Amino acid sequence: MTTTYTLKQLADYLGAHFEGDAEISVTGIANLAKATVSDLSFLSSKQYEHFLETTQAGIVILQKDFEPTRALNRILVDDPYLAYARISVLFCQRISVPQGIHPSAVIDPSARVASTAMVGPNCVVGAHSVIDDGSELLAGVVIGAHCHVGKNCLLHANVVLYHGVTLGNQVIIHSSTVVGSDGFGFAPTRAGWVKIHQLGGVSIGNNVEIGSCTSIDRGAIDDTIIGDGVIIDNQVHIAHNVKIGKGTAIAGCVGIAGSTTIGANCTMGGFVAINGHLEIADNVHFNGGTIVTKSISEAGHYSSGTLVQDVKTWRRNAVRFGQLDQWIDRIKTLEQADRS
Amino acid sequence: MTTTYTLKQLADYLGAHFEGDAEISVTGIANLAKATVSDLSFLSSKQYEHFLETTQAGIVILQKDFEPTRALNRILVDDPYLAYARISVLFCQRISVPQGIHPSAVIDPSARVASTAMVGPNCVVGAHSVIDDGSELLAGVVIGAHCHVGKNCLLHANVVLYHGVTLGNQVIIHSSTVVGSDGFGFAPTRAGWVKIHQLGGVSIGNNVEIGSCTSIDRGAIDDTIIGDGVIIDNQVHIAHNVKIGKGTAIAGCVGIAGSTTIGANCTMGGFVAINGHLEIADNVHFNGGTIVTKSISEAGHYSSGTLVQDVKTWRRNAVRFGQLDQWIDRIKTLEQADRS
Amino acid sequence: MTTTYTLKQLADYLGAHFEGDAEISVTGIANLAKATVSDLSFLSSKQYEHFLETTQAGIVILQKDFEPTRALNRILVDDPYLAYARISVLFCQRISVPQGIHPSAVIDPSARVASTAMVGPNCVVGAHSVIDDGSELLAGVVIGAHCHVGKNCLLHANVVLYHGVTLGNQVIIHSSTVVGSDGFGFAPTRAGWVKIHQLGGVSIGNNVEIGSCTSIDRGAIDDTIIGDGVIIDNQVHIAHNVKIGKGTAIAGCVGIAGSTTIGANCTMGGFVAINGHLEIADNVHFNGGTIVTKSISEAGHYSSGTLVQDVKTWRRNAVRFGQLDQWIDRIKTLEQADRS
Repeated sequence: MTTTYTLKQLADYLGAHFEGDAEISVTGIANLAKATVSDLSFLSSKQYEHFLETTQAGIVILQKDFEPTRALNRILVDDPYLAYARISVLFCQRISVPQGIHPSAVIDPSARVASTAMVGPNCVVGAHSVIDDGSELLAGVVIGAHCHVGKNCLLHANVVLYHGVTLGNQVIIHSSTVVGSDGFGFAPTRAGWVKIHQLGGVSIGNNVEIGSCTSIDRGAIDDTIIGDGVIIDNQVHIAHNVKIGKGTAIAGCVGIAGSTTIGANCTMGGFVAINGHLEIADNVHFNGGTIVTKSISEAGHYSSGTLVQDVKTWRRNAVRFGQLDQWIDRIKTLEQADRS
Repeated sequence: MTTTYTLKQLADYLGAHFEGDAEISVTGIANLAKATVSDLSFLSSKQYEHFLETTQAGIVILQKDFEPTRALNRILVDDPYLAYARISVLFCQRISVPQGIHPSAVIDPSARVASTAMVGPNCVVGAHSVIDDGSELLAGVVIGAHCHVGKNCLLHANVVLYHGVTLGNQVIIHSSTVVGSDGFGFAPTRAGWVKIHQLGGVSIGNNVEIGSCTSIDRGAIDDTIIGDGVIIDNQVHIAHNVKIGKGTAIAGCVGIAGSTTIGANCTMGGFVAINGHLEIADNVHFNGGTIVTKSISEAGHYSSGTLVQDVKTWRRNAVRFGQLDQWIDRIKTLEQADRS
Repeated sequence: MTTTYTLKQLADYLGAHFEGDAEISVTGIANLAKATVSDLSFLSSKQYEHFLETTQAGIVILQKDFEPTRALNRILVDDPYLAYARISVLFCQRISVPQGIHPSAVIDPSARVASTAMVGPNCVVGAHSVIDDGSELLAGVVIGAHCHVGKNCLLHANVVLYHGVTLGNQVIIHSSTVVGSDGFGFAPTRAGWVKIHQLGGVSIGNNVEIGSCTSIDRGAIDDTIIGDGVIIDNQVHIAHNVKIGKGTAIAGCVGIAGSTTIGANCTMGGFVAINGHLEIADNVHFNGGTIVTKSISEAGHYSSGTLVQDVKTWRRNAVRFGQLDQWIDRIKTLEQADRS
């Protein structure tokens, strides 16, 4: 299965101008260094500019006002990286699967699956749930009762939605991810932990993508809420009653504890850990590995932790960290002596 | 499906006194701020006390000696949060599934499934395994050979137990969690890593709850052991030969390396990382994000790491951390000069 | 099912000398303290040497030049830990499953499953994929289109391979692990994130083992590559375009961000977090919890972070860390005063 596009076709798709041979065609995307004449490539950062001297790419996407020193078949756009993103879908090779319900799927009689939806082998759809137009459930997906999967969603193999989970339209969820598992709520007693049954659901907006092996818990009383356009990577933990504002991006291995509210258009690097019951403002950015133990009310860029070092140097410094307050006292003593 | 309880019914269920209209009824639980007349609510913390002035809740659970300034239909208990936990189960809406074995399930002829147990669509139960009275395996659960699932357990969709895993009674395991995968044991050789086959199993006590997307490895020789009443959140990693004492609570994204023993009634915040071959005493509490590289023999509260700051301030401090031992030497030099 | 081996059989299997009763037999492996006369044991570390005085083990594996003070049935080898690893497979009790394809499996007509391979209940194998000789897919495994599973691989229950994933020979993947999910690639625009479709695949070498609940993303353009002999634990996140050199060992809860290249024979403790677009040399070792934000060009041992302390002491030190650069300035002021 080969996909072929000409320079003119790609420029038209982007609504962009081009220069060069309108009929030259490409069958894939490659970076500038590896591209052959049958590849499209793009320059998205100055640091790769020198590859333009030698690239074999059949077509290159360039910034509008960029003047290459060689003749290149090129598409001229405001944002080459975005143009690459928009073109990437054209070369995406996922095997199309037939519409309809695979005979091995188990669908509750009270569920409704749109005729243009696809339910793959060994999927299970619970009572009163709806799978709307154009959505695809790949193999082994389990949907609990009273769920709503919006239009044109894609749930990869072995995704699980518990009961009472609502997805907007154009939501993508990757394999082994779980949405709607019980929040970690227990009342302590002398006889042990007493489970607090989690009565809320999960509400996920439109155009959300969630990576693989990620957990999003249902709310204790109200819903856990993921806003429109949020993107979440693999191995992420989102606890009960968390609310995440529109357009926020959450990288791999992040964990957000219960009842925390995250603003819109935030970004979190990998391994960010956010305590429960906090409020994080819009446009807050956390470096990877930041441990957040207080609310952040001002937009900005935040971090915690220490930097990597060779282990001998690090150990000496780490030991000194453990005595730091005492050493500060000794600085104070010196200052007093100095003043007297 | 609506569940309705009167004030008298709820008070009787809790074995508690009440004041107000015995016949007023509620159909759900809500927090004080959002509750309507058909909701039960509760006051579990002084910080929400002001909501009592305005709450519309039909019934409120209050601490015994608390005197509200308004007439409220109320239930009087020692611990309102615990009372809420105990009542939460009454309003839990999980669709009940029929007892018995779904026709799509694959059960080894040598396995024994109690007549009061439920095995859902596409489940697999291996040779010589037992699913005891009242236990439920939701869709896609895979149970290896020689497992024992005790009474009234609930295994959510796509849980996997490898062979030789034993669960006590009233164990809940959430979706995509894996119990009994091989421990990470390899002998180094010049030709590469040689796998140490993991011959132990996993033994899980009574009244244990385990979140979604969590891994608990089987032991190398002896079993990995999770004590009675332990609660474990999502995205947790428990390595081979770990032993966890009764009633310990482990929050999301925690990792415990091989052969470490954790005492009873410990608590771990999210992202706690514990090295292998350590001993942690009873009643030890770790802040979220603590990296534990030594045994802890005394009960208490422990932590590591640094606090979140704006990135510019943080970077300056982090650079100084990397020079800390040298600066301490300079303090010592100043002290010597000061003394001379 | 009991497995029995005599001293002579085990020594022959290892190609090693033995002393004692050639016909004494054992049925399992135990550590020195717990072993009974029907167990094999081994001494791999001086710290356990005193157990030799009292062990009941029927056979003990000892270092060649080690002279026990008691008569023991023993096997003499260069490396007792390696000998234990090699013998562990003999006592591994995994129930053998029949060759062939379970009737509930769904195999695309264009896929090829070797006659000596095993495909378990509810597995799905996509179009044009190959399952080669001797490989086993346990229950619920989903293989996308255009995958190649090499010889003698073992994919545990509910593993998912997306399309275009290639495994070498003797690859083991544990349950709920996902290989080939989309990399976290999006172009930012004012209207939100635009998905970059991930056109690469994943290529995994020979003799690789991957733990449970781990995610390995497909490449954006080229493949994500895992070299021969790499071992990866549970709950690991490997992002798109990462390359991992031969023989590298990655412990639980590690995350490696996109386009980073890791050398050969590296080791990472748990919770190591490595930024994107970095180069890590061969033979680099990271302590658990290290956050790596720069490339490492020299072999060696690296770390970051601080050490665990009681929370009161820690908090004082952590507050001082947040002021560290200012205190360093005060040291400088003292030094200047001292010099003047």
